Amino acid sequence: MRVVEKREDGIVVRGAKAHITGAINSHEIIAMPTRALEADDKDYAVAFAVPVDAEGVTMIFGRQTNDLRRLDGDMDCGNAKYATVGGEALVIFDDVFVPWERVFMCGEYDFAGELVEVFATFHRQNYGACKVGVADVLIGATANVAEMQGIAKASHVVDKITEMIHLAETCWCCTLACSYEGFKTPSGAYMPNQLLANVTKLNITRFPYEWSRIAQDITGGIVITLPSEKDYRNPETRELIEKYLKGVAETPTEHRMRMIRLVENLSIGAELPESMHGAGSPQAQKIMIARRSNLEMKKEMARVIAGIKEDEHFKRIRGVSEKEFFSKLKC
Amino acid sequence: MRVVEKREDGIVVRGAKAHITGAINSHEIIAMPTRALEADDKDYAVAFAVPVDAEGVTMIFGRQTNDLRRLDGDMDCGNAKYATVGGEALVIFDDVFVPWERVFMCGEYDFAGELVEVFATFHRQNYGACKVGVADVLIGATANVAEMQGIAKASHVVDKITEMIHLAETCWCCTLACSYEGFKTPSGAYMPNQLLANVTKLNITRFPYEWSRIAQDITGGIVITLPSEKDYRNPETRELIEKYLKGVAETPTEHRMRMIRLVENLSIGAELPESMHGAGSPQAQKIMIARRSNLEMKKEMARVIAGIKEDEHFKRIRGVSEKEFFSKLKC
Amino acid sequence: MRVVEKREDGIVVRGAKAHITGAINSHEIIAMPTRALEADDKDYAVAFAVPVDAEGVTMIFGRQTNDLRRLDGDMDCGNAKYATVGGEALVIFDDVFVPWERVFMCGEYDFAGELVEVFATFHRQNYGACKVGVADVLIGATANVAEMQGIAKASHVVDKITEMIHLAETCWCCTLACSYEGFKTPSGAYMPNQLLANVTKLNITRFPYEWSRIAQDITGGIVITLPSEKDYRNPETRELIEKYLKGVAETPTEHRMRMIRLVENLSIGAELPESMHGAGSPQAQKIMIARRSNLEMKKEMARVIAGIKEDEHFKRIRGVSEKEFFSKLKC
Amino acid sequence: MRVVEKREDGIVVRGAKAHITGAINSHEIIAMPTRALEADDKDYAVAFAVPVDAEGVTMIFGRQTNDLRRLDGDMDCGNAKYATVGGEALVIFDDVFVPWERVFMCGEYDFAGELVEVFATFHRQNYGACKVGVADVLIGATANVAEMQGIAKASHVVDKITEMIHLAETCWCCTLACSYEGFKTPSGAYMPNQLLANVTKLNITRFPYEWSRIAQDITGGIVITLPSEKDYRNPETRELIEKYLKGVAETPTEHRMRMIRLVENLSIGAELPESMHGAGSPQAQKIMIARRSNLEMKKEMARVIAGIKEDEHFKRIRGVSEKEFFSKLKC
Repeated sequence: MRVVEKREDGIVVRGAKAHITGAINSHEIIAMPTRALEADDKDYAVAFAVPVDAEGVTMIFGRQTNDLRRLDGDMDCGNAKYATVGGEALVIFDDVFVPWERVFMCGEYDFAGELVEVFATFHRQNYGACKVGVADVLIGATANVAEMQGIAKASHVVDKITEMIHLAETCWCCTLACSYEGFKTPSGAYMPNQLLANVTKLNITRFPYEWSRIAQDITGGIVITLPSEKDYRNPETRELIEKYLKGVAETPTEHRMRMIRLVENLSIGAELPESMHGAGSPQAQKIMIARRSNLEMKKEMARVIAGIKEDEHFKRIRGVSEKEFFSKLKC
Repeated sequence: MRVVEKREDGIVVRGAKAHITGAINSHEIIAMPTRALEADDKDYAVAFAVPVDAEGVTMIFGRQTNDLRRLDGDMDCGNAKYATVGGEALVIFDDVFVPWERVFMCGEYDFAGELVEVFATFHRQNYGACKVGVADVLIGATANVAEMQGIAKASHVVDKITEMIHLAETCWCCTLACSYEGFKTPSGAYMPNQLLANVTKLNITRFPYEWSRIAQDITGGIVITLPSEKDYRNPETRELIEKYLKGVAETPTEHRMRMIRLVENLSIGAELPESMHGAGSPQAQKIMIARRSNLEMKKEMARVIAGIKEDEHFKRIRGVSEKEFFSKLKC
Repeated sequence: MRVVEKREDGIVVRGAKAHITGAINSHEIIAMPTRALEADDKDYAVAFAVPVDAEGVTMIFGRQTNDLRRLDGDMDCGNAKYATVGGEALVIFDDVFVPWERVFMCGEYDFAGELVEVFATFHRQNYGACKVGVADVLIGATANVAEMQGIAKASHVVDKITEMIHLAETCWCCTLACSYEGFKTPSGAYMPNQLLANVTKLNITRFPYEWSRIAQDITGGIVITLPSEKDYRNPETRELIEKYLKGVAETPTEHRMRMIRLVENLSIGAELPESMHGAGSPQAQKIMIARRSNLEMKKEMARVIAGIKEDEHFKRIRGVSEKEFFSKLKC
Repeated sequence: MRVVEKREDGIVVRGAKAHITGAINSHEIIAMPTRALEADDKDYAVAFAVPVDAEGVTMIFGRQTNDLRRLDGDMDCGNAKYATVGGEALVIFDDVFVPWERVFMCGEYDFAGELVEVFATFHRQNYGACKVGVADVLIGATANVAEMQGIAKASHVVDKITEMIHLAETCWCCTLACSYEGFKTPSGAYMPNQLLANVTKLNITRFPYEWSRIAQDITGGIVITLPSEKDYRNPETRELIEKYLKGVAETPTEHRMRMIRLVENLSIGAELPESMHGAGSPQAQKIMIARRSNLEMKKEMARVIAGIKEDEHFKRIRGVSEKEFFSKLKC
């Protein structure tokens, strides 16, 4: 994405932004660089907003797991109320005009790295809330299925559901911590702790795979073999499904089916790669964690404790030098 | 599933078998009990074979991940050549007649447990071959995508692909070991080692989740956002996709897309719950591992080494008693 | 531990408290129940403080990993400055008299469960700080050893040290979150969030094992084979050790040895079981997590989203009932 | 280690071999190169055998976890019968003469890489047997402790012991598989499968940490706080220990103490870093796995299945070309 023309009233941009979540449901697209830039990349140092229907904008909607089922409507969709739309689009800007009042960066390449880092921090911060919200529903759905299938009290089931909760709450702790440890910037806006925001997101590239695995363990193979709603609504087959897919007496078969579809929807498919790559891939977080971790200070502490360097703070704190203190201590 | 009538020429069975893989692609269905049975369950102690189109047999095909895409044919299907059909069915037997020559068990409830265990052993043995074959293709596809995206030589990518190989080969080792450690039964048939067959399958309920996670890590978010083949074939959008989804110069965009679809097909969806529950759920394997592990012998060894029990084999092997031997050893 | 006599001026207690960390370094011992109690356990519902040298108190000091090395003094001790003393003791109270002003509970059995839970919460909260402090030093020591051995820039070493940091910071996030989410009690004291405090501690029963494993990976086998300080100080062998255990040119052999000993001290031995069992064993945390997780609310959310229960909050929030809203939405 | 002089009757070698397990218990030392060598390294391409007391050989014995306890003799040692001696030594060769009949390599630098790889293969093969033998005793000891402490039937304890068994048997499978898949060399000797031998060892750098972690979980904090044998033998304290460290009624306190010491001995300390680095560090195995995995073949399979390359074997197997076959298949 770069500036191809500067006019008195604005700029013309050309390029594409790959797989933007929710792009087709939005009113506006805000575009910005995705990595640090050098002087030679000046034209690529551009950030702006345009309406989604601006001239020259084309969106190519991507395929998501089980996308066609959403058109089927209700049960088979898995999350009938809230998941019928949504997905990612390749957004192409074919010489799109942007008036100056909507241009936020234009040529300031030396700020690109910082801009990316700041944006990524906010995005990574929220992953421990977003995906843990999903996890809460998945945990609830899995517990419901266990109950409907009569195994909710089996010790291994209780243990596994507790493990799901533990994993989800660990991610929740990360989001809370990076938020609480945030700081006020001179502008008055708040900024999360950058190290901990990256820690949050890196856990999200791992833990959802494990809680989904457990959800599938408890739900059973039926999570990928459940008959279609059409067969369930078909009088010829309905009775057979009612009879043979019945769980415990007090649960209607349809309820069990709906709950299994919800587990399927939340634990199989796009949800997981989205956890992996949304807000940046794990390697990006590892690089940021390494950069923000103050490893030199840790190395220094180890040198002091190993006795190969004197502790500079000792005398200030205790009134005697480290050496003196320890020489007196020994008998 | 139980016998509802015994006639001179055969039996009549009623019941269902839940989510049978490949049922609709088969010529015959062989049914058998799924757990140990008691005297009261006598009617359920039944094993037999019937053609899939026997009178009274109904199959309700289940939904699998991305099932509708298979009808689209080629690219979007992910595995165009070999995955167009297949899936699980709920197989219902509504008073199906089975002639005696196709009845293998009828009332011998005390053999049900053993039959299940033997069958499960064979099925669990082969999971380290079946899923590792899938893993080999997934590893190859992931390595191809990495190359096509120009990241094949990045150290973290090399490390992660090696990790996928390591995990797959570990499962392969398990299948090999339980097979080599098999034994010839009096009938002349071979039986895998039961402990190790269960170990094999238990690993398959875990490792494929991890190798799929790595495949998605390396492939990138595009694994769930790739535009459809229809958009690619559409002259209006084709050029844009060609331009903006191009990988390295020497790879046609279509090749990259096909390879990403293959990763999607093998790492997202039915493949994983199938690894979890095919041949029995993890808890079933844990029970069998506990039962077959000879824990008492391990406890005995520990008692000898801890010195709270004399080693019975010592004198036989060394000519002197343990006590004598160690008393002489000390100086 | 129970009350064996009540007098006008105080009580007499009898019993023991098993493996109390730091007991012999303390001025006073505060004893309290360790589980919920029933009416029959009334005499066991006792909490009090006594000086460590009160009449009738006996301490039997336990053995810790490499305890005898501490007497050797400096290098071999691993953490010469701060680890020379410390350990756990079995504290026995053989009819110890406690004056009333130092008795905090005496017979109020129905508060025992709550007292234990409150105490455990505080103790579990701080584990993500305590052990992460240890981890910071271990990370620093490992990074120093890597540098001293000339491998600090190898990509797998950088990746592994970053992983150590990530694991440690995850635990740190947990401690922060349970603290920030704490609340003021009527007494004015603060109480950490109990669910998250237990999540903190459960992670501490796992992650330190992994970061120690990585520390040992990077340090090399020398972490358990390093010659003794005595051999290093011995003129006969010193030169050989100097020559053959030299790392990079700029690091004195002694510095490398001291740093390896620090890694040994922090990653092998008591540190890990202490992470496991201090403040309660993992199963205790799992029970608390299950109890505090509000699973019913999660199940409720899943029922609403699966469409088997109407959302009670919907009308209040949006002005129309859920049913009406969704019926209008569809076209 | 290099040749410093060649004489008519033999060679003179100088150098050192770092931390050689069992060196001081051996009759002879066999030395060989530890990595591939180039022409410039010619003098380092030397392999030979010498008696441990050859002139010029010095051994500096390293410290191991809890080494001083072994001198205490019985209980506190943990594994009184079989662990009293053993450890690693830095073996220095200060101009040691080796007669020609004991020289196996002298200057053939181009064989050094192969020699190392072959040696490593054998050593890595056996790790899944060696450490699984240790694991079997540890599993038995842990199960005994659980019984002695009255928790053997708790569902989480049963589950965790089964997990230990599962992990150990997985490693055992690896050793079996690389052995069974071995092949006869022209010399008549057998060679394990190199890929799978490396897979075996890489698992050994991970799984023992986990099974040790579980052993410590079940055993409890007492694994690092148990009073010393001296206190147990001391009449003043013995009765207190007998009373307060008693487990279930039928187990003598001493038996429980001995069993806890055995768990300590096998799960804390040298055992784990030894699993990590014996027969080469994990990175060495990763490199070998990458090299031996035939990744190109996997990439080729993926290309065929993704439909970007024709299957060369198809026509030979099925009589028609792939293209023809699939074009007929579609309707």
